[in-house]
Amino acid sequence: MNNSVELPKANNAQESVAKPQNIGIGLLGMGVVGSGVARVLINKADNLAEQAGFPLILKKVLVRDAKKQRSIELTPNLLVTHLDEILSDPEIDIVIELIGGEYPAKEYIERAITNGKHVVTANKELMAKYGYELLTLARKHNTDLRYEASVGSGIPLISTFQQDLAANQISAIYAILNGTTNYILTQMTQEGLDFSAALKQAQGLGYAEADPANDIEGTDAVYKLAILSSLAFHTKINPQEIYCEGISRLQAQDFRYAREFGYAIKLLAIAKVDADTIEMRVHPVFIPQDSQLAKVDGVYNAIQVEGDLAGNLIFHGEGAGTLRASSAVIADVLAIARNIRRGVNNIPEVRLNQKLTVKPISDIETRYYFRLNVVDRPGVLAQISKILGDNSISISSVIQKENDLESQSAVLVIMTYPSQEKAVQRALEQVAKLATVKEVANSIRVEV
Amino acid sequence: MNNSVELPKANNAQESVAKPQNIGIGLLGMGVVGSGVARVLINKADNLAEQAGFPLILKKVLVRDAKKQRSIELTPNLLVTHLDEILSDPEIDIVIELIGGEYPAKEYIERAITNGKHVVTANKELMAKYGYELLTLARKHNTDLRYEASVGSGIPLISTFQQDLAANQISAIYAILNGTTNYILTQMTQEGLDFSAALKQAQGLGYAEADPANDIEGTDAVYKLAILSSLAFHTKINPQEIYCEGISRLQAQDFRYAREFGYAIKLLAIAKVDADTIEMRVHPVFIPQDSQLAKVDGVYNAIQVEGDLAGNLIFHGEGAGTLRASSAVIADVLAIARNIRRGVNNIPEVRLNQKLTVKPISDIETRYYFRLNVVDRPGVLAQISKILGDNSISISSVIQKENDLESQSAVLVIMTYPSQEKAVQRALEQVAKLATVKEVANSIRVEV
Repeated sequence: MNNSVELPKANNAQESVAKPQNIGIGLLGMGVVGSGVARVLINKADNLAEQAGFPLILKKVLVRDAKKQRSIELTPNLLVTHLDEILSDPEIDIVIELIGGEYPAKEYIERAITNGKHVVTANKELMAKYGYELLTLARKHNTDLRYEASVGSGIPLISTFQQDLAANQISAIYAILNGTTNYILTQMTQEGLDFSAALKQAQGLGYAEADPANDIEGTDAVYKLAILSSLAFHTKINPQEIYCEGISRLQAQDFRYAREFGYAIKLLAIAKVDADTIEMRVHPVFIPQDSQLAKVDGVYNAIQVEGDLAGNLIFHGEGAGTLRASSAVIADVLAIARNIRRGVNNIPEVRLNQKLTVKPISDIETRYYFRLNVVDRPGVLAQISKILGDNSISISSVIQKENDLESQSAVLVIMTYPSQEKAVQRALEQVAKLATVKEVANSIRVEV
Repeated sequence: MNNSVELPKANNAQESVAKPQNIGIGLLGMGVVGSGVARVLINKADNLAEQAGFPLILKKVLVRDAKKQRSIELTPNLLVTHLDEILSDPEIDIVIELIGGEYPAKEYIERAITNGKHVVTANKELMAKYGYELLTLARKHNTDLRYEASVGSGIPLISTFQQDLAANQISAIYAILNGTTNYILTQMTQEGLDFSAALKQAQGLGYAEADPANDIEGTDAVYKLAILSSLAFHTKINPQEIYCEGISRLQAQDFRYAREFGYAIKLLAIAKVDADTIEMRVHPVFIPQDSQLAKVDGVYNAIQVEGDLAGNLIFHGEGAGTLRASSAVIADVLAIARNIRRGVNNIPEVRLNQKLTVKPISDIETRYYFRLNVVDRPGVLAQISKILGDNSISISSVIQKENDLESQSAVLVIMTYPSQEKAVQRALEQVAKLATVKEVANSIRVEV
């Protein structure tokens, strides 16, 4: 090649052909995030216009009920109740989807794309389940589909993987991806609260929804991990292949023992690649108290990434909130607007060509914490140790706690060396059958 | 506008006019970072080619001595000793400048730009001092000048401010930007080492250079803060306007007292905007032990950014090392290569239109820690308190320590409420003149 291959001048022919006067935006959904985005588009109009090169105009907002009272005053004629009013509007260039969930958001996005609109979405469920499909559709229609707000809210992650870490081979992600559960776990740690009390408090503060299942069962974190893993490892991820346990079975005692052994309890989303296998899981873990992730408290999220060049990076910020998400949504809108102004095709590529086999959870190896309620009688530990040993599980430490003379019961807390999951499950089944064991009260993986 | 303003197809005419077969790279400098970048370009050639769309070929490497023994084996004919051999090579599209410092790097970059080459640099001194000038020159010549590696090494920051945080009004940056000093401070904290012992250790491990002045005097952090502030606040920054104190006057006792009061000592780079004034400074500070930045140990860097939308974000990673910088350098190279392939002009804009007045250090307000060696005699504290009070400085706590009967001396440790810098300096001068005060041993600002 020679020097003739240089970047076109900013004022190239292409741009002058159809110089736009402004960028029209259609917004789908006026919930918490939608209202925040509308407010930013209106309040920061001047600044955004300066950056984009021309005004970003909120043209229409799709709502279910145009008469509903809202926290933000919009010119009434902005509100529409039929998607077609947005799709058929030639002045709308970008559609922002903030309805959430699968239905009808998926269909709406598909129709926006096939109508030639660029799309910005914060929809983690959709991007986790159908990201490849939707991105491919967008590419086919020469439109851009951006989703920075779908993971970590205002923490830049999507573009970080797409661009900044592009030269890296990523080996692992360890992440706190759900603010609700991290808030609950923080309260359980710091205030010694029970799970249900901590959940109620989170609901009272608006950090947890009335139906908190998606958060506390880990589903939300699974979606986000699927999106990040797909970007980090350049492979298609089916979120159903991610092993998932929620936090509802954690008890105040587990936090006490964790602290005693020098650990914090966090709901971690973990993805690790070893040669051509990938291991992905979301579940509560013991992590060392002095690790960076252990220090992430409250509604904060943190994403730790290990790259062969960049080393160990951590991105830390609030993973939820009206304005947090709007930071990412508007950044996506600005990126698209700049490309429109420059008349350039700068759609991030979909590189999902890595073939990785998902390792079944039964094959993974971790350390473990067991809490057992046992009969307080000599020989019990010997019985349990024998079962563990027979299953190739080595004990790193064991403490007998809370002997209760009246009920003749005791609590055994056992920490193991790395052991295979299927051996652990088999051993725990055998332990549970011992006459001297009243209950396998909890078992939690340990990451170091 | 109407729908006709859409992104051009990827296979648009422009691209097909001059479809390149590969991207040629000229590398200036084969020091630690240069060798790392060369190694990555060679070892990851296949992966990079796949991402860029065609091979990235290291065509020539500028060195001072072509015969010198090197850690990486390069085909001997790659090595050149005259810049012209690179600038006149039409097959070289991108020049990577990794010489560092002002001379001759500035002239080399300018000549590369005026010869139509895109430039990637890790040169913080140059970008801090002449960033606006060089970026403007690049824009004039329609070439791209990227500098992601200049701050935080492999931690993505430049693109984060340029794109991801574009919708935010940034109010403050608090950052640990120098790994050498953070390593020294960590050793002084954890091992109780004196400054000189900690410095020697850092030099032994290769974390500090034989002449460590740039690091320990804070100059390195000043350059990096100038670059970040310019991006965050959209204004031209002259690094000479950044107030700077290094870490060499910190003593083991300061770390003991800091811990006693619940603080860590860090060298922070701080930039804050209040209306149309900006406050920028690099100096040691007491920060609360439980703050996130206090927990950043060893050679790690961490950059905390406060945005009106994204909230409080922290970016954490290793701020130095061969491979760390190459992560950022190669990401920049890939970004340029993608633009060349797509035949698009996607040069980040230079938005430095904010008019901000730099607040003089004498006008800033902070809390303070003072350590005074005094004569152990009743009434001393009263004299000192009076001077502080006369200068409108309120004491938040005071402890008398280490009374030494023999020398009749004692140590007074005083923590103040927020006070104006000029009042503090005036008061300390007056205090130093008291017959009962042997020495104002140290004074360190406190950030909470």
